[in-house]
Amino acid sequence: MIRAAAELFGQRGYHATAFSDVIEESGAPRGSIYFHFPGGKHELAREVIAQAGDEIEETVAGAASQAGDPAALIRALAEVMVERFEGSDYRHGCSIATMVLELAPYDEELTLEFDKVFSRWRDAMVDRFEAWGIARGRGVALADLVMSGLEGALVVSRAARSSESFWRTVDALIAVVENEKAVPAQRRR
Amino acid sequence: MIRAAAELFGQRGYHATAFSDVIEESGAPRGSIYFHFPGGKHELAREVIAQAGDEIEETVAGAASQAGDPAALIRALAEVMVERFEGSDYRHGCSIATMVLELAPYDEELTLEFDKVFSRWRDAMVDRFEAWGIARGRGVALADLVMSGLEGALVVSRAARSSESFWRTVDALIAVVENEKAVPAQRRR
Repeated sequence: MIRAAAELFGQRGYHATAFSDVIEESGAPRGSIYFHFPGGKHELAREVIAQAGDEIEETVAGAASQAGDPAALIRALAEVMVERFEGSDYRHGCSIATMVLELAPYDEELTLEFDKVFSRWRDAMVDRFEAWGIARGRGVALADLVMSGLEGALVVSRAARSSESFWRTVDALIAVVENEKAVPAQRRR
Repeated sequence: MIRAAAELFGQRGYHATAFSDVIEESGAPRGSIYFHFPGGKHELAREVIAQAGDEIEETVAGAASQAGDPAALIRALAEVMVERFEGSDYRHGCSIATMVLELAPYDEELTLEFDKVFSRWRDAMVDRFEAWGIARGRGVALADLVMSGLEGALVVSRAARSSESFWRTVDALIAVVENEKAVPAQRRR
């Protein structure tokens, strides 16, 4: 049910998705749904956002376990994202971005939850970067650039119905973190 | 009328905005609206998207006219964006991004128009970069990174109701193009 909602909220957004669409998409029996989600669509959105936070932490952890440096981490993250994006025929980029642009900052409760997802994502990357020798302040700047770059690339690429621009952005992000090693510490901000 | 629609589509999206909301927001007489926009909300969306394309070209041209290099161009672009973002109390980032995530790739006609806006934006930056000595291939990669970074930063920052992360991303983008000069040509991709 939460997976079906994440799919629909990500693809068309919160407003265009009716609670009944999610029930239909999930194939779950109607009675059990109202039992599990008495708060309706809004409660479902809260669950989707919380799950997006869990997922991005797991994705970063999974990518980091295969990666030996920040560049490989970014590539592995991008591969997970592009797989979903291409597999959905360019319909599904990020589960929460559509809702963020529809609902933040209007819906205060959900806005706090959206912000938590980005904070968890940022922190997960900063921790890994730090383990690879990048100071936390610089790690936060890099994490924000990576997060923004990937989120924005999914907007541009949905319009293009192609992942070409997504990969150009990812390659440029990778070049930034690779360059990090080449730049003497005193030249860094 | 188009300005009011751009405001509402950007703030809450296409689905949550009724044609009557736009009429109310614009203060225009109801009769003249139906006369000028017989195609209703969909036609209004087309106009908003076309205008977003004009605007971003003008914004790049205006920013470039004050800027002497790519770093100054990015800063000037970011200042225009953040002024609107902060001035709207973190409600309005980009006029088309919300619609892109709601409607692309489902609405084929509008998806083509969204893509045109990003292409016009990319081309405008690549032309300026080239005038400053950056080869077109590299210019496209940088333009995609800048476009994605700014669009994504507006998503992250709407959730945070703050422009702190926006500026961190902008500073990181500026560092990338500044570094461009420092890197010998043969090390560039």
